[in-house]
Amino acid sequence: MPKEGITPRAQDYSQWYLDIVQQADLADYAEVVKGCIVFKPTGYAIWEAIQRGLDERIKATGHVNAYFPLLIPKSFLMKEAEHVEGFAPEVAEVTRAGGEDLAEPYVIRPTSETIIGYFYSKWVRSYRDLPLLINQWANVMRWEMRTRPFLRTTEFLWQEGHTVHATEEDAERETLLILHDVYADFVEKEMAIPVIKGLKSEKEKFPGALRSYCIEAMMQDGRALQAGTSHNLGQNFARAFDITYTDQHNTIQYAWTTSWGVSTRLIGALIMTHSDDEGLVIPPRLAPTQVVVVPIYRNDAERSLVMEAVRRMTAEWKGRLRFKVDDRDNLTPGFKFNEWELKGVPIRVEIGPKDVEKGSVAIARRDQPGREGKSFVPQEGLTDRLTALLEEIQQALYQRALAFREAHTADVTTYEELKQQVERGFARCYWAGTIEDEKRIQEETRATIRCIPLDQPQQAGRCIYTGKETTQQVIFARAY
Amino acid sequence: MPKEGITPRAQDYSQWYLDIVQQADLADYAEVVKGCIVFKPTGYAIWEAIQRGLDERIKATGHVNAYFPLLIPKSFLMKEAEHVEGFAPEVAEVTRAGGEDLAEPYVIRPTSETIIGYFYSKWVRSYRDLPLLINQWANVMRWEMRTRPFLRTTEFLWQEGHTVHATEEDAERETLLILHDVYADFVEKEMAIPVIKGLKSEKEKFPGALRSYCIEAMMQDGRALQAGTSHNLGQNFARAFDITYTDQHNTIQYAWTTSWGVSTRLIGALIMTHSDDEGLVIPPRLAPTQVVVVPIYRNDAERSLVMEAVRRMTAEWKGRLRFKVDDRDNLTPGFKFNEWELKGVPIRVEIGPKDVEKGSVAIARRDQPGREGKSFVPQEGLTDRLTALLEEIQQALYQRALAFREAHTADVTTYEELKQQVERGFARCYWAGTIEDEKRIQEETRATIRCIPLDQPQQAGRCIYTGKETTQQVIFARAY
Repeated sequence: MPKEGITPRAQDYSQWYLDIVQQADLADYAEVVKGCIVFKPTGYAIWEAIQRGLDERIKATGHVNAYFPLLIPKSFLMKEAEHVEGFAPEVAEVTRAGGEDLAEPYVIRPTSETIIGYFYSKWVRSYRDLPLLINQWANVMRWEMRTRPFLRTTEFLWQEGHTVHATEEDAERETLLILHDVYADFVEKEMAIPVIKGLKSEKEKFPGALRSYCIEAMMQDGRALQAGTSHNLGQNFARAFDITYTDQHNTIQYAWTTSWGVSTRLIGALIMTHSDDEGLVIPPRLAPTQVVVVPIYRNDAERSLVMEAVRRMTAEWKGRLRFKVDDRDNLTPGFKFNEWELKGVPIRVEIGPKDVEKGSVAIARRDQPGREGKSFVPQEGLTDRLTALLEEIQQALYQRALAFREAHTADVTTYEELKQQVERGFARCYWAGTIEDEKRIQEETRATIRCIPLDQPQQAGRCIYTGKETTQQVIFARAY
Repeated sequence: MPKEGITPRAQDYSQWYLDIVQQADLADYAEVVKGCIVFKPTGYAIWEAIQRGLDERIKATGHVNAYFPLLIPKSFLMKEAEHVEGFAPEVAEVTRAGGEDLAEPYVIRPTSETIIGYFYSKWVRSYRDLPLLINQWANVMRWEMRTRPFLRTTEFLWQEGHTVHATEEDAERETLLILHDVYADFVEKEMAIPVIKGLKSEKEKFPGALRSYCIEAMMQDGRALQAGTSHNLGQNFARAFDITYTDQHNTIQYAWTTSWGVSTRLIGALIMTHSDDEGLVIPPRLAPTQVVVVPIYRNDAERSLVMEAVRRMTAEWKGRLRFKVDDRDNLTPGFKFNEWELKGVPIRVEIGPKDVEKGSVAIARRDQPGREGKSFVPQEGLTDRLTALLEEIQQALYQRALAFREAHTADVTTYEELKQQVERGFARCYWAGTIEDEKRIQEETRATIRCIPLDQPQQAGRCIYTGKETTQQVIFARAY
């Protein structure tokens, strides 16, 4: 049964997304500030959960946090040739401050390789200073033409790691460590979103990088969403910003740097992976609220009976479950059910006078709306049961998303097949084309190479476009 | 014994502060971005500890976090008369973006009352929507002429709470709740900094506020530092941004709003309250590292003996103490002692082969450098001993700061006495003067009314400047 205010996915996927953002109260359009949104409390709480999970992993892998300036002298952007080409057209510029025109404008950071490179050049002197492993949580700004809440906004929030290493191998190891142990691990285990780890094609790599790695996820309309990137920057920024160190033999060497980031667009990925026509669905490990209790009563006597049972029941939940008791008096249970479904709370516990009498409660799973997700269980042992059920839901969401991706991924061997497959999902194929070939395919199909998966076949095949024999497979898809 | 690189406080307090910032590796000057600093990992870790303690209290008092745009249409600033006067001269302006000149410039938020007021006017409809209790963690920018690391920087980090209420009483209650239960509680209990809670004078209140409350701390040079402010904004911003609600009688009413904030300047307060000529001193509850273990050995055999004892000893510390084992091989114990003293770790544990043999360790308290802070204790029961000692240090730091403040606060009854007292600390006196009187005193003494303490005498006295009888006492001091 479609919900009021939510366009069904089958009818208009794009409108469905915007409806979820609005109905789950995640964001508001900041129409007075071009392309910006307000991250409303419900949406921001998801970002806080994402920050916690990532920050833990970033620190566990030996990194520390710091904070660099928001403003970057405009000339800094110009120092790395590809970088300026990639970012200069979309920056916001500060030209006046303190009532005066500035001699040189600043740009608001679109990303911080340049300003951080400037400081690293001061801080790194000797091989003993390496590796330098720093992360920053910050806001960034890119003046985008077409924006969409969470997925593409002029200002967004992210973390950006910036590291310096003595050798190419060290930089490469760092880049892959972040991809595997931080990004893929977090997104798959906590957000329950399966990802394909891979290398970006030359056309799609970060402006200024030697190699860009990424994790790509599939949304429910079959399109790809880049959920995180990790770049081996080679010596490009070290040369542009003179980041050098004295090695063991007292020789001055250019360092090797990396950068890596994920942003609030992960909230968009979360919505488009799990949510349904009833509203938002949040995986239990990430959910700010895992269980909501809705007490049911018709009068004061029933209310005090039920609330007493709720108090007893939830007493042992503290520290074990993140829960809310919705005891608002002016709203009907039906209204509350609807609201918590919209907001994606994984489990709803209902308890009325009859349940108190029987020593039971009703449980509803958000990932299985309707009858099959509902059950009646005893209050005894409820905490353990809920804990186990949360874990079950977490796994079920991951498996469902994985099955969806598998069902919408196909190996294709002709360009015609590719054209058809990118209408519904990922097309996997052999590839030996050029950047120009890739551009032509994008013009004709709106699909791009999302990544060259790290997981490659052990045999050769023919490139789908050029017919050349190659061992390299890629994933083509339309992307957010 | 003064430390290399640190100017003694008695010689030049101002230089001492800068030396601590540099020697403890807390920040770097961002000379290429006017008045900005880089929050280096050691400094940023202190900010993360401050964020944790405050965020916990902000949430425990019923608030939620959200995030609003960095940029504010310049015209918004103009809507509240006092507000524009206070902030317009020091904003940074974005006049170009995406390669084009903007029709209306944006300012980078110096504070967010105006942009948040715009959204609250959309979100608040009925008395049922109130109170609206939102906090934001963000960067802000004020183009300051004279900057100083942490204390006054062009860009700084802070939290700003913005709430909406139905009545003046509700707004006032919120303003004071934040002052008492969030700010004073956190700063006194976690940062070990005693504060005086009070009301700002008309001259010193926030531009656009009805009443500003603050917590004021005394630094070791006797000057005051405003450590947090909480403003009852009355209906000023509600009128400027049309924040209205329909009350129970279906009448449209202007709402009452508050705002409150603390910033990275708290790091400056921390340094100047507790630190000494040996380096930084951090109170244990706030310290990112509470205990550092320095193993002492001269050869590989001793190393493995000592490190084995360290592993045994620290096994049960996990989850109970925040600690580091400094097992760097290329540095002498003396070098390490010096470094951790500079960085303010509350307790150092030293262990060498003799200690292993005797089953003891040496302990050094950072708050008591030199002999009196050193003791030899058995390894048995060490975890409990360290936990207790950390708490003892926490209390000792608070008591020392409190005693210092008491010793440098005096009741003064003549203007001459006031002039002398503000050279060394706080001058408490009766006050019935005007804004002009206060300005004249500032010109003559460089001291201002830091606050009208909430704690007032129950009797009357004569105003120090006008001689009028009054029951109101104020604190005059020079301020950071």
